[in-house]
Amino acid sequence: MPVTKFVYDFEEPCDGGRALLGGKGIGLAEMTALGVPVPAGFTISTDACRAYQGAGKQFPAGLDEEIDEHVRTLEAHSGKRFGDPSDPLLVSVRSGAAVSMPGMMDTILNLGLNDEAAAGLATRTGNPRFAYDSYRRLIMMYGEVVEGVPPHRFEDALAGLKRTRGVTQDVDLTADDLKELVDSFKAIYEEEVGRPFAADARVQLGRAVRAVLDSWDTPRAQVYRRVNEIPDDIGTAVNIVQMVFGNKGEGSGTGVCFTRNPSTGERGLYGEFLANAQGEDVVAGIRTPEPLVRMKEALPTAYVQLLDTMERLEQHYCDMQDIEFTVEDGKLYLLQTRTAKRTAAAALKCAVDMVDEGLIAKEQAVTRIDPQQLDQLLHPTLDPSAVYEVAAKGLNASPGAARGSIVFTADRAEELGKAGQDVILVRWETTPDDIHGLIQARGVLTAHGGMTSHAAVVARGMGKPCVSGCDGLSLDERAGTVTIGTHTLREGDVITIDGGTGRVIIGHVDLVPARINQDFETILEWADELRYLRVRANADTPEDAAKAREFGAEGIGLCRTEHMFMAQDRLPVVQQMILAVTEEARRDALELLLPMQQSDFEGIFEAMAGFPVTIRLLDPPLHEFLPSLEEATSDAMRERIRSLHEANPMLGSRGCRLGLQYPEIYEMQVRAIARAAIAVEQRGNPKPLVEIMHPLVGFREELARLRALTVEVADAEGLTDYLVGTMIELPRACVRADEIAVLADFCSFGTNDLTQTTLGFSRDDAEGKFLTRYLEDGVLERNPFETLDQEGVGALMEIGIERARAVKPNLKMGICGEHGGDPASVGFCHRAGLDYVSCSPFRVPLARLAAAQAALKAQGVTAVVIGG
Amino acid sequence: MPVTKFVYDFEEPCDGGRALLGGKGIGLAEMTALGVPVPAGFTISTDACRAYQGAGKQFPAGLDEEIDEHVRTLEAHSGKRFGDPSDPLLVSVRSGAAVSMPGMMDTILNLGLNDEAAAGLATRTGNPRFAYDSYRRLIMMYGEVVEGVPPHRFEDALAGLKRTRGVTQDVDLTADDLKELVDSFKAIYEEEVGRPFAADARVQLGRAVRAVLDSWDTPRAQVYRRVNEIPDDIGTAVNIVQMVFGNKGEGSGTGVCFTRNPSTGERGLYGEFLANAQGEDVVAGIRTPEPLVRMKEALPTAYVQLLDTMERLEQHYCDMQDIEFTVEDGKLYLLQTRTAKRTAAAALKCAVDMVDEGLIAKEQAVTRIDPQQLDQLLHPTLDPSAVYEVAAKGLNASPGAARGSIVFTADRAEELGKAGQDVILVRWETTPDDIHGLIQARGVLTAHGGMTSHAAVVARGMGKPCVSGCDGLSLDERAGTVTIGTHTLREGDVITIDGGTGRVIIGHVDLVPARINQDFETILEWADELRYLRVRANADTPEDAAKAREFGAEGIGLCRTEHMFMAQDRLPVVQQMILAVTEEARRDALELLLPMQQSDFEGIFEAMAGFPVTIRLLDPPLHEFLPSLEEATSDAMRERIRSLHEANPMLGSRGCRLGLQYPEIYEMQVRAIARAAIAVEQRGNPKPLVEIMHPLVGFREELARLRALTVEVADAEGLTDYLVGTMIELPRACVRADEIAVLADFCSFGTNDLTQTTLGFSRDDAEGKFLTRYLEDGVLERNPFETLDQEGVGALMEIGIERARAVKPNLKMGICGEHGGDPASVGFCHRAGLDYVSCSPFRVPLARLAAAQAALKAQGVTAVVIGG
Repeated sequence: MPVTKFVYDFEEPCDGGRALLGGKGIGLAEMTALGVPVPAGFTISTDACRAYQGAGKQFPAGLDEEIDEHVRTLEAHSGKRFGDPSDPLLVSVRSGAAVSMPGMMDTILNLGLNDEAAAGLATRTGNPRFAYDSYRRLIMMYGEVVEGVPPHRFEDALAGLKRTRGVTQDVDLTADDLKELVDSFKAIYEEEVGRPFAADARVQLGRAVRAVLDSWDTPRAQVYRRVNEIPDDIGTAVNIVQMVFGNKGEGSGTGVCFTRNPSTGERGLYGEFLANAQGEDVVAGIRTPEPLVRMKEALPTAYVQLLDTMERLEQHYCDMQDIEFTVEDGKLYLLQTRTAKRTAAAALKCAVDMVDEGLIAKEQAVTRIDPQQLDQLLHPTLDPSAVYEVAAKGLNASPGAARGSIVFTADRAEELGKAGQDVILVRWETTPDDIHGLIQARGVLTAHGGMTSHAAVVARGMGKPCVSGCDGLSLDERAGTVTIGTHTLREGDVITIDGGTGRVIIGHVDLVPARINQDFETILEWADELRYLRVRANADTPEDAAKAREFGAEGIGLCRTEHMFMAQDRLPVVQQMILAVTEEARRDALELLLPMQQSDFEGIFEAMAGFPVTIRLLDPPLHEFLPSLEEATSDAMRERIRSLHEANPMLGSRGCRLGLQYPEIYEMQVRAIARAAIAVEQRGNPKPLVEIMHPLVGFREELARLRALTVEVADAEGLTDYLVGTMIELPRACVRADEIAVLADFCSFGTNDLTQTTLGFSRDDAEGKFLTRYLEDGVLERNPFETLDQEGVGALMEIGIERARAVKPNLKMGICGEHGGDPASVGFCHRAGLDYVSCSPFRVPLARLAAAQAALKAQGVTAVVIGG
Repeated sequence: MPVTKFVYDFEEPCDGGRALLGGKGIGLAEMTALGVPVPAGFTISTDACRAYQGAGKQFPAGLDEEIDEHVRTLEAHSGKRFGDPSDPLLVSVRSGAAVSMPGMMDTILNLGLNDEAAAGLATRTGNPRFAYDSYRRLIMMYGEVVEGVPPHRFEDALAGLKRTRGVTQDVDLTADDLKELVDSFKAIYEEEVGRPFAADARVQLGRAVRAVLDSWDTPRAQVYRRVNEIPDDIGTAVNIVQMVFGNKGEGSGTGVCFTRNPSTGERGLYGEFLANAQGEDVVAGIRTPEPLVRMKEALPTAYVQLLDTMERLEQHYCDMQDIEFTVEDGKLYLLQTRTAKRTAAAALKCAVDMVDEGLIAKEQAVTRIDPQQLDQLLHPTLDPSAVYEVAAKGLNASPGAARGSIVFTADRAEELGKAGQDVILVRWETTPDDIHGLIQARGVLTAHGGMTSHAAVVARGMGKPCVSGCDGLSLDERAGTVTIGTHTLREGDVITIDGGTGRVIIGHVDLVPARINQDFETILEWADELRYLRVRANADTPEDAAKAREFGAEGIGLCRTEHMFMAQDRLPVVQQMILAVTEEARRDALELLLPMQQSDFEGIFEAMAGFPVTIRLLDPPLHEFLPSLEEATSDAMRERIRSLHEANPMLGSRGCRLGLQYPEIYEMQVRAIARAAIAVEQRGNPKPLVEIMHPLVGFREELARLRALTVEVADAEGLTDYLVGTMIELPRACVRADEIAVLADFCSFGTNDLTQTTLGFSRDDAEGKFLTRYLEDGVLERNPFETLDQEGVGALMEIGIERARAVKPNLKMGICGEHGGDPASVGFCHRAGLDYVSCSPFRVPLARLAAAQAALKAQGVTAVVIGG
């Protein structure tokens, strides 16, 4: 019976690929096959891991012998021997599964050292400090991962020694200090483990391999696999690699380099080099590395070989590489190559250039870009090179950075903003009364309010930076001051806010402007060719609509009409309507609002030039249009505020419940829409594609009545070819989607509210409170308001889609929540068979890209990632 | 080709049954077959209706001829003729589908009258007033239902005549007045219809039949069928019945009777009789009827015949009958027999007696009782014979009636209550601070708050009457008065409240006490033999637990621990715990609460004597235990109240989110439960069956952590054989029930919260507001908080049950919401395959009965209803 082969030299051909050799092993084998110089070594395959686990954690027959044989080959190949006191063979042991998996043992370096070998290494390198530092690290790493010695025991000994020596940094310890530390570590090891540190390199290796295989089955690793849906039986490989040293003299050195510029994506030399040094030295900050080009003089042969290798690796992997290398006695070794992390701009340029160079196809270029990362290009951001101190942090309520003089009232913001000043509006919280100030401010900062507070929602709609819920902020209105962290400021003082991170900074910080450059455009054009999912924008004003078109939106998926009610000149009329005690008085106020709404819609229809526009009728509870009880100006208003008060307004009189209670409001809105559409067409514009959407429908009968109302009014006005649809934003609407679909020309999932009701999470109360705690504690992996909860909310959406399409197979269905701009959620929408996503204008480019990636993924085209 | 037969004489045998003859037709035919004297007549079958509708509203071939033939038979049989001026044949025309269906034309009486016939009838009966009243009614009914004349035209004419005559009642008009009115009605008819009133009886009949057939297809009837899921093609039958007259002299008369006493269920004569009178006279209140026994003297033959008929009908229908009869010239005619409406007590007695008499089986007895109706036996109620004026109405928040002196504070309620006075606590709203007052009060009345307000929930738990959200109530605390409707009262004034209807009455109204008599017990025992669904109670105190056992609960399905926190002596400690700024301080406060909780649980375990007890760990948001901001007594408290404030507390930091944020709270509760269970068993009681339930779980990971916490604490205390489970009260938990079930020993649907989240209805904000409007407007048929929304919430439950049982086929699943005591919802729970329902102790008997009915229904045994 042939014995299974478990171990493969990096040089050995092997058909098992990544599944058999793991990510690290396949990388080293591939580089070896390419003729790229890597240290010698071998991989214990995942077959061994499976056999080990299957046999109750026993090495399978033959594995010990195979390892011995490969160690002998390694010794022969390197001319060094395990435990040799003059020039010992040292190796690293690393785990490496087919997918990157934190939770497993990672690395033990310097395996093969013992007292004699350390002394030999000290002599050989002329660097006893290095030798004993390596040795004490081995004892610590080995003790911790192989024998389970509590790491604090070693750390305490190290800290004690530093106290005794009166130094604060590890690097201030001498070689003798470290030699002493080795003795302390050995004593700790023996005390904890019950036997001395194993001097025999082969014993060290055997136990280290066993530790890697055991680490596959730790609870942490099991949990990680469960969460990430990684099968338990793929197993991990173990890589044994010869250590090489760049600190053997002037013919040695170490460095890192990129095959292209990771900031800009441009071709050219980009890297750093340090002669006669070990990678450790760079990390420890002992010496400052020099530009890569200096290697040309110091190590000309290795330099040329490196350039050649960089070219080969990029050609092989078809992507920008991030390379670590060491030169030992003039000989180049690549320690690692991996796909290089890069800025958004560099990612775009690389992808476009590589298509031009014929290295990759458009499909691959499109899959390579992380849509989330593009967000940094779509808003002004803090200059990454700027140095500043963060005075306070709040919620990252609306992305982008802004700076300006602070003002405390909307009136003042309007006054100074119109005068051309950059102002930041600072408030406890904002209300609809502040809208004129928000329009003129560069950004807004509030002490209260969550991600869906008034300030946050309005700012996101305007694409304007907002930091909300900033705990470190306190206003003293009488004194006319604000305290931010420890600073007290007055009107006119300058601050900078970063709505992408929630940071608040006192004073002026340089900003980098937003840009959609040619590379970006090119990638988006390719994405448009590849995607099936349509991308619309959420836009409430002609300005937003224009911006949406600019970013490539194919229509408006959500036009919220309530923001139109909040403008300063309208709010009094809206309030008059709400305070009306008779239907007639309400109709009088609505009569005044009608021409205003009509003109809003005309502007939006013109901007969208024949693309579809989905208009949602009034949704929020009426009390949102009234001031607080304290600010009410009449008894009637106070009375109405009291009567409209709700314990849980999220689940109260809003959405279509309003429309059924006050049909005259929806009638006015439908009339305004119809008149606007007709007027726009009559002025010679393309005929508006009108889609009227009823919010918060849960029962068939609600939509039946509102559809009848809509059709009656629209037909009476002479509107033709419009659609009447509904949002699906309640769990009930999902399970009854069949009977709702019968009455709807389209359905749009409102995933913001659907998330709130499905999970029972009030967004206002969750973020910054229990949800934040859940994310910190790992109860949840992701914020369900940012990335769709596919397993919960998504499962309900799938039920809704299935039931609706069962009665109307071609029903147009989409999503209009903030999830519409989240790449992972866009992927879900594609798989679920939706027709379109709708998101804020600034996220339309991301959604276009994510939609293309989802389509490609369905065809099996995904970004290739190596290493990890 | 044989022509279809469309018309059946009452005497004719017919295989088509109810489907062919309709409910009324089959009743008349059956009575005829039994030899019970009914007026002659015939039925036009539902086949005719289908043919008529199918042919575009044309009489099918042969129908006209068949009707003519049967009219001739009727004339021959009665010896009267249509339109005969001396003694005309008069008939009624009535629609009658297989199921009772409002929305269709009902009845036209006196068909066959014209000027000559009316004069003849006047002579014949010696009662011209009756003749002309009958005639004017015919014109009015016929004009309205056959020709669509607006009824107000006739009503205006009648009102005008009364004004002219200076009378207010119809009965004050003389025969001449009515004759004049006939002329006016004929003029109106001609003006509206464009032709004179049809004098020909056959024409009248033909058009009336057509009108019945047309009424099958009116929008109102269509809507009714859609809502009630009645097929469109069952059609209606049309019954033509000879009119008989009880006012032809002393040998005639009219009456109603019951085969048993509809108030008590006892056998015996129960009915009323009026000699020489028509049914109309009784309705119009012209004369007061006499006891049935008086008929024995007046009409001895008919009387004996009636007694015999009553016996025969009861034997035939096996149920108590409500009979209308007329005696014309000594001859008895039954006009109608139908299942008699009865009180709950009568229903129970009848059912038990009829089983004893061998008339019905136990299964039928059990199906006969309306569980909802039993509620009236389980609480004191207003004496049905009492006369009173309702001063104001609020929500029927907790059933039962109570009366007493009003008090305005909990302290005063406690003081006077302990002194033995009956008091009603009247408040704007109640808070946990009022609990000691609620305990001593007979009932509670609040101006604010919905069906789940503090007052409502606590009162329902205590089985105490509560009227909440009473708009007509206003307190003036400074003056020490309350205004109820138009009355202003002071402390000590007596009021009566009816929590079953929401009525508030000034002064003393007699009450009828609650009772479970022997008949009730018997029916419940039978129900217990027949049902599969277990019935548990929601109970939070030893007293409630004892009450639950008394009513037959087989365990506690929901023991809410928060009410234990609200007692006056505990609230300060609870508040101390909430205000604690460190975990340690919180643990100190919890240490004080532990023995209190333990003693609560000991009492409950003892009361349940080995029946299972499901204890839900702390659920409500912490701010519910703090006073209002205005009433806070320290800055720290104010600060904490502010920080705990939530925009939508229903969707905030509550349920297991609390347990994960403050694990020490749940640890204390589990410890108290474990110690209580062990102590109770050690005292020699049956071993408590402990089920620990975690509320508001939406994610597997929440339950995983809380299960671990529970097991750790319970095991450390030495508790054995306990279960750990969860509520399913979020839509997410339903769709992820599979992975939640893996970690749960039982799951209990919390349908109150599941309804709120699935529908997006905050109960506090919906009831009395938009939900009330929806119910009034017919957008919804039923209040989903009272009767489970089977199509929405139920659909999600079905998904949850299916997914959970897919991974754990025998998982114990139940429901613990108020729906657990609603008969229709109990039926759903049976069909959905739940193991148990849990409801308030007072509804346990209803649930036991409803569970048996559901089981019987599944076997095809349902209550038989005739007539309708």
